[in-house]
Amino acid sequence: MNEAAKTLDGWYCLHDFRAIDWTIWKTLSSDERQAAIDEFLGLLEKWGAVENKGEGSHALYSIVGQKADIMIMLLRPTMEELNEIELEFSKTKLADYTLPTYSYVSVVELSNYLAGESNEDPYQNPHVRARLYPELPKWKYSCFYPMDKRRTSEDNWYMLGMDERRELMKSHGLIGRSYAGKVKQIITGSVGFDDHEWGVTLFSDDVLQFKKLVYEMRFDEVSARYAEFGSFFIGNILEPEKVNSFLQI
Amino acid sequence: MNEAAKTLDGWYCLHDFRAIDWTIWKTLSSDERQAAIDEFLGLLEKWGAVENKGEGSHALYSIVGQKADIMIMLLRPTMEELNEIELEFSKTKLADYTLPTYSYVSVVELSNYLAGESNEDPYQNPHVRARLYPELPKWKYSCFYPMDKRRTSEDNWYMLGMDERRELMKSHGLIGRSYAGKVKQIITGSVGFDDHEWGVTLFSDDVLQFKKLVYEMRFDEVSARYAEFGSFFIGNILEPEKVNSFLQI
Amino acid sequence: MNEAAKTLDGWYCLHDFRAIDWTIWKTLSSDERQAAIDEFLGLLEKWGAVENKGEGSHALYSIVGQKADIMIMLLRPTMEELNEIELEFSKTKLADYTLPTYSYVSVVELSNYLAGESNEDPYQNPHVRARLYPELPKWKYSCFYPMDKRRTSEDNWYMLGMDERRELMKSHGLIGRSYAGKVKQIITGSVGFDDHEWGVTLFSDDVLQFKKLVYEMRFDEVSARYAEFGSFFIGNILEPEKVNSFLQI
Amino acid sequence: MNEAAKTLDGWYCLHDFRAIDWTIWKTLSSDERQAAIDEFLGLLEKWGAVENKGEGSHALYSIVGQKADIMIMLLRPTMEELNEIELEFSKTKLADYTLPTYSYVSVVELSNYLAGESNEDPYQNPHVRARLYPELPKWKYSCFYPMDKRRTSEDNWYMLGMDERRELMKSHGLIGRSYAGKVKQIITGSVGFDDHEWGVTLFSDDVLQFKKLVYEMRFDEVSARYAEFGSFFIGNILEPEKVNSFLQI
Amino acid sequence: MNEAAKTLDGWYCLHDFRAIDWTIWKTLSSDERQAAIDEFLGLLEKWGAVENKGEGSHALYSIVGQKADIMIMLLRPTMEELNEIELEFSKTKLADYTLPTYSYVSVVELSNYLAGESNEDPYQNPHVRARLYPELPKWKYSCFYPMDKRRTSEDNWYMLGMDERRELMKSHGLIGRSYAGKVKQIITGSVGFDDHEWGVTLFSDDVLQFKKLVYEMRFDEVSARYAEFGSFFIGNILEPEKVNSFLQI
Repeated sequence: MNEAAKTLDGWYCLHDFRAIDWTIWKTLSSDERQAAIDEFLGLLEKWGAVENKGEGSHALYSIVGQKADIMIMLLRPTMEELNEIELEFSKTKLADYTLPTYSYVSVVELSNYLAGESNEDPYQNPHVRARLYPELPKWKYSCFYPMDKRRTSEDNWYMLGMDERRELMKSHGLIGRSYAGKVKQIITGSVGFDDHEWGVTLFSDDVLQFKKLVYEMRFDEVSARYAEFGSFFIGNILEPEKVNSFLQI
Repeated sequence: MNEAAKTLDGWYCLHDFRAIDWTIWKTLSSDERQAAIDEFLGLLEKWGAVENKGEGSHALYSIVGQKADIMIMLLRPTMEELNEIELEFSKTKLADYTLPTYSYVSVVELSNYLAGESNEDPYQNPHVRARLYPELPKWKYSCFYPMDKRRTSEDNWYMLGMDERRELMKSHGLIGRSYAGKVKQIITGSVGFDDHEWGVTLFSDDVLQFKKLVYEMRFDEVSARYAEFGSFFIGNILEPEKVNSFLQI
Repeated sequence: MNEAAKTLDGWYCLHDFRAIDWTIWKTLSSDERQAAIDEFLGLLEKWGAVENKGEGSHALYSIVGQKADIMIMLLRPTMEELNEIELEFSKTKLADYTLPTYSYVSVVELSNYLAGESNEDPYQNPHVRARLYPELPKWKYSCFYPMDKRRTSEDNWYMLGMDERRELMKSHGLIGRSYAGKVKQIITGSVGFDDHEWGVTLFSDDVLQFKKLVYEMRFDEVSARYAEFGSFFIGNILEPEKVNSFLQI
Repeated sequence: MNEAAKTLDGWYCLHDFRAIDWTIWKTLSSDERQAAIDEFLGLLEKWGAVENKGEGSHALYSIVGQKADIMIMLLRPTMEELNEIELEFSKTKLADYTLPTYSYVSVVELSNYLAGESNEDPYQNPHVRARLYPELPKWKYSCFYPMDKRRTSEDNWYMLGMDERRELMKSHGLIGRSYAGKVKQIITGSVGFDDHEWGVTLFSDDVLQFKKLVYEMRFDEVSARYAEFGSFFIGNILEPEKVNSFLQI
Repeated sequence: MNEAAKTLDGWYCLHDFRAIDWTIWKTLSSDERQAAIDEFLGLLEKWGAVENKGEGSHALYSIVGQKADIMIMLLRPTMEELNEIELEFSKTKLADYTLPTYSYVSVVELSNYLAGESNEDPYQNPHVRARLYPELPKWKYSCFYPMDKRRTSEDNWYMLGMDERRELMKSHGLIGRSYAGKVKQIITGSVGFDDHEWGVTLFSDDVLQFKKLVYEMRFDEVSARYAEFGSFFIGNILEPEKVNSFLQI
């Protein structure tokens, strides 16, 4: 039997992509629209308070192209909290004017391919904790895509031995690290939770860095031979103070 | 001619995933909404009575993400009963405010790759009966996914001999068994009934166990080389006493 | 040039799957609903008269799961008649409350891989005629799925020689014949008519026989190496005398 | 660099498949419906006049099954004219009661794999012109499907040399020619215009000939190893004088 | 680790495909329609002013077939500007009568497989700048398609060495250059931005040149072995002065 890499698991994660139904939204009176906006801003404030207490984090981006108008990314300690937030949002007025276009369920994950052999409980390591329970950066751009490791007869990641996988992941990780400071990566695991095996969320203040990073990685054997990609979503940050003008008619 | 594994078949199974059309649901008056909720709770009660008599079982989970709002899983002795329940649900008031998003038809199945050679009628064995006609656990989380065994030229499960398949399934089963007490698995067969060959429904009180189990199995040759997976659905239990607040506006 | 198996072709066949739009159907008054039901029952009666004269056949099944609520299967001597029936149904009141979910166009087909070398015109053979122009059984369950023969580089059915294909089909046919009396199979050809190469419609009074038959066949080389399957639909018979209660609110 | 076969290109071609929204169509008054039908018949007459002048051609078929109710096939000398006809149709009353279900954009094409080496301008050859600018036959049945030539590592049409492709196309062409008089084939090229590389439109007075032709070709190496097929559409001719009863409620 | 080709990146690019909802559009009064048209023409004028200042470019084409009615292609210096234009368009009256059908997000890209080794900053080279920040030609036809480089075990572009890729791209480029003057190509990179790796937008005054170019390239090894194509869109230019009659009822 082949050995699975152990993972460290942090906050649960929901990516929720929605289109605005502008045609119907415009039929509201200004007052109704403002009330709906204010209710949504109240929700953002509530989420902000949770973030301030270190009990979760969230991000709001405006998606470019027709895949969605907005992406809400949510991190919480339990699956139930994600579900409650979904439910609460569904019951808002604004939700009535949105259409679900895609979602992704996962959990923040650190694979320990590269972990040292220590007796320390990694969940007590502050550096590890900061990565498992991150406060999402408020950077200008975000990119999300789900992915799988390939399992064809010639290129089957899951039939490789642990050592070979570790070796491959090392060079892969080097590329990621060379973008440190320019791109922040959140890897979330979704085996058993959603249709792909991982979600990748990138943040940057320079949108071109996403293209450079993903393109460079594509030539690395881990991606070139073993990665299968789902859809890519790209967005500009939508700060709370811009929500009003974004939704204003 | 290659030999198929014999299977033992129990209750028929329907997984029914539905989204709530919240926008329209909100347009109802409180009284109308309450009447629809009460009618649905009456249905759950009726299903509970069937379960108490040991004539079937059911589960209700709230799905995370946009794939559905709820999953209703139903076990019954005949295909007709599944159809009748569907029809009865379709005629309820609540159904008018739901949208079908996915469903799966199957039958509880025990493959006897690992069966001993005895003269006993397995359908009389109480241990076997408990697995063929299970009462679904009321655990906090459920995960559902359909799957196939692969039939490519290099990795063709159905061209393997019986002995090789038995050997592979043995190691696969060991992984499953190592999660005993933490994860309950219901395997349902759907060859000839639905688009994949099997459905897998997992229950646990620790949602991370789903990820650990499915991930660990992925490195096992049966999954690594021979499994093809459909969509994954993950949910939190929705107890009858929570239905009212779940649907309340 | 490789030799195609000759086929004998009988009645044209339309499978028509439809969902009922229950939400709108309920908004009708009882009288309107009854009128729509009666009109549909009139259509069934008319089809029954055609069947009695041996000029066609039909079947009506209630589909389990969300793929459809009903399947109407129609056999007629010409493609025009199938089209006329579709058109006539579209113009009924009931049709306004249904949504098309899937359809399949084909023609009853006997491949003559196994045919003897005689000078007889097979279309005059009563046994052959009974299979080309069958009266569909009124059995409790029906299963439909479309399929193709694979054409990958290693497993290319259409590059095999006639003798090899004949040999493979022989063992395949033996499995089918071992279910005689338990499962009735109607094979319809759809090359040039619809998206797959064949449709398979099974009838049985024991729904588990579908699973057993299709599963056993999957280990036979013809299926294991060369078959690609589309969606599977499974239903319970909906006799004319049950239509009223099925559609009653 | 490998050599592409040269092609001769004739009229531009649009296949437009539409469903009738019968439910809404029925809500019109007889007069409104008749006005919409008459307007559409006027369009057909206009197209007929173009055809009579040899400046284009068209065909109208009633599609069997749920893929569409009608197929309009249009041939015109320019891409602009196809677009204008689309636009004109969109602005008719009847269009309001139709739903687009599929379309295909291409251009009548003769590949010259089999062309002789002459100095003649083929566009001046009357035989060639009749094939590039054809008047579509008013035969009882039509079949349409798009297709590609495969590019997998073992079966890559585009990596074969010109001579090998020519040889393969020769035997392929022989099958087609053996159906002369029974089936008329219009091959249209769509590389750069639509999602597949070619469209194939067949006409016959015997619908079974489509099945025989496509099935026989499937055993020919060009199809067996190198063809990938899209959806198949099959229809009965809808003569202008039948349009009224087709659309009458 | 394999070496990625460096790219030069210019303006960000959004392709926005939309269908007109003619049925609803017709229900407007002439005045309302005219107001909506005028508002859209105002937007085009505004975009024209940006183009005149060299701060972006755009194109408007009428798409043939059912994939869309119009394609709006936009080039801008930042991702934010693309998003703002989308948002502004969404808030227009005309947008209420359109349905999104496809979109693509990318950035004008020059790969430097063929770049010389100079110390010059290419972003200062006027020839390079003209290609990175192009004014889109007002040619009669446009063709758009997204594409990927293949990563199967035998044909894996990303596992080839830099020299081999450079060699292959050279012959590929020669084909493109042989269409100079007849076809203008804009290559946009979308790794990390959208579902494929590149978008290709072609412009020509002779629509057949698209077919010839793409077909000829398909026999070149880069396309034959390594290219995977998405959907193809083909359109006729829709000049501002034609917008009124295009949308007039």
